[in-house]
Amino acid sequence: MPTLPHLFPSPETRGRVVVTDVALRDGLQNQPQHVGTAGKAALLRALAAAGVPSIEATSFVSPKAVPQMADATAMIAEALALAPLRASALAPNLKGLERAVAAGTKEVAVVLSCTETMNRKNINMSLGEATRVGCETLRAARAQGLATRGYLAVAFECPFEGPTPPERVLALGLALLDAGADEIVIADTIGAAGPAQVQQLLGRLLPQLPVDRLGLHLHDTRGMGVANAYAGLELGVRRFDASAGGLGGCPFAPGASGNVATEDLVLMLEQSGFATGISLPALASAVDLAGELLGRPLGGHSMPWLRRQIARAAAESRAGREEFPGR
Amino acid sequence: MPTLPHLFPSPETRGRVVVTDVALRDGLQNQPQHVGTAGKAALLRALAAAGVPSIEATSFVSPKAVPQMADATAMIAEALALAPLRASALAPNLKGLERAVAAGTKEVAVVLSCTETMNRKNINMSLGEATRVGCETLRAARAQGLATRGYLAVAFECPFEGPTPPERVLALGLALLDAGADEIVIADTIGAAGPAQVQQLLGRLLPQLPVDRLGLHLHDTRGMGVANAYAGLELGVRRFDASAGGLGGCPFAPGASGNVATEDLVLMLEQSGFATGISLPALASAVDLAGELLGRPLGGHSMPWLRRQIARAAAESRAGREEFPGR
Repeated sequence: MPTLPHLFPSPETRGRVVVTDVALRDGLQNQPQHVGTAGKAALLRALAAAGVPSIEATSFVSPKAVPQMADATAMIAEALALAPLRASALAPNLKGLERAVAAGTKEVAVVLSCTETMNRKNINMSLGEATRVGCETLRAARAQGLATRGYLAVAFECPFEGPTPPERVLALGLALLDAGADEIVIADTIGAAGPAQVQQLLGRLLPQLPVDRLGLHLHDTRGMGVANAYAGLELGVRRFDASAGGLGGCPFAPGASGNVATEDLVLMLEQSGFATGISLPALASAVDLAGELLGRPLGGHSMPWLRRQIARAAAESRAGREEFPGR
Repeated sequence: MPTLPHLFPSPETRGRVVVTDVALRDGLQNQPQHVGTAGKAALLRALAAAGVPSIEATSFVSPKAVPQMADATAMIAEALALAPLRASALAPNLKGLERAVAAGTKEVAVVLSCTETMNRKNINMSLGEATRVGCETLRAARAQGLATRGYLAVAFECPFEGPTPPERVLALGLALLDAGADEIVIADTIGAAGPAQVQQLLGRLLPQLPVDRLGLHLHDTRGMGVANAYAGLELGVRRFDASAGGLGGCPFAPGASGNVATEDLVLMLEQSGFATGISLPALASAVDLAGELLGRPLGGHSMPWLRRQIARAAAESRAGREEFPGR
């Protein structure tokens, strides 16, 4: 694998950022093509080989509701073989948690939508019921020694109710923290926010939710995913979700867009002086693999540039030269 | 033309940002297809109709060197008919300025690359000679009452020399200001910067170059164009170049990417509380026209989302309903 000796000198070294790749869960769960377990396991290994430190590997939702995730137990077994990789799985409720624990899962994520209508449409529960179920799942997971992430979905805007009140997000975040969430992940599920909205919401949350326990889950629907991540970064957020190749979004909604692409996020982070531990050339190979599995080309906005750098580095490596002009 | 009643409520009203669309110059000058004057004039009118307040309409370079710009005089005549539109033209030297003045141009842009090698490769001059020519062109333009913009190309990174020293950019910027540039435009010509680099360079420039006379010209090569604009915005920059549809980049360099797309920039600015005066639906029509002229689909990262909103607003308008869910 060629290395990219030079992206652009960052002005300073600013520490470490943890990137969680969610391509295997948020990315694949809505795809019309069902990728088989062998293909998913290969993608999991490729992401881990690229140095991705944290991967949302699967979801213990009902296989009837989301058949793409029916192989959750097998996927966790694959992930466990890749220790010390942090591999998490979504557990929607106590029943899902039971399956997750039986599979040996060490970290679970619980998702709570911030609006009444989204919970009704998504899981046929009121916001109150969904909060109760989310909290009891988190408590049970912690009681069994699992690490936990609490997602707050549609934290910026709900497709049914419009902008989400920041007070609501704060209250639900505090409830999930109290119930035992190690991390609170603020999710722009439909990709509605811009950087000013990230600033505004984080400005409301940060005095009461510790920034080192906050993550951002961003979608790139309006082309502002990387700018939004940067806005969070400037406010001290050091945990971000992303999806290799920008995978995600509903293929039945024309033009729907997926999560911010892991390669775009990592490039921005590394150029900003943050260490991610992720190799961009190896990540690009994982993106190519994901594209092969889905039978269509994938890649974030930086991918054409990245492919050129990789080809160039490989050619220079073959030529035995050390010099690398860096563009 | 449908309106988009709701993007996302911005947290505050933060004033006005001036966007200069450069699709007709930076966008078209390297395209293999030569768009005829009638097509260019139609695009100019479409951009003006969308409310774009400032357009770089053409370049008075040698028609032998850049045949795409041979109709510069005709394009200026078209632009003058659209007053009070701010229409500028590139004037590479005194000879170009003479043609620009003869055509009735009211605002000229002068480009100076920040490195020795880039000037040699681009215009066969040393950095010293290029600086002298740029300054004398600016002085002559000001003496004739023209408004002036001074571009500093490869201000972040040069494809031949690597990262550009910020001290150099500052010195050249001060030289152009002294020579009579009304605005200094800091150009990331190859799209190498990330937001941390924008912060770093502006941090060096701003104490000595007044921020209200600074603009940013960003390319989206690495997918960080909007994030970079946001970084500039946070430091007080209120002038940005962009190109409708993200047009630009050399079509002979596979994967090369153009300027940050005007629609992506405007969406971010408006969602951040800034007024641009630009109608996104009308801008999308201009992008579609540019795509027809070039025979290939164009559009920034936000374009699929934007097209959905426009179709939806149009459908709701037809249905006579006022409600607009906003996603």
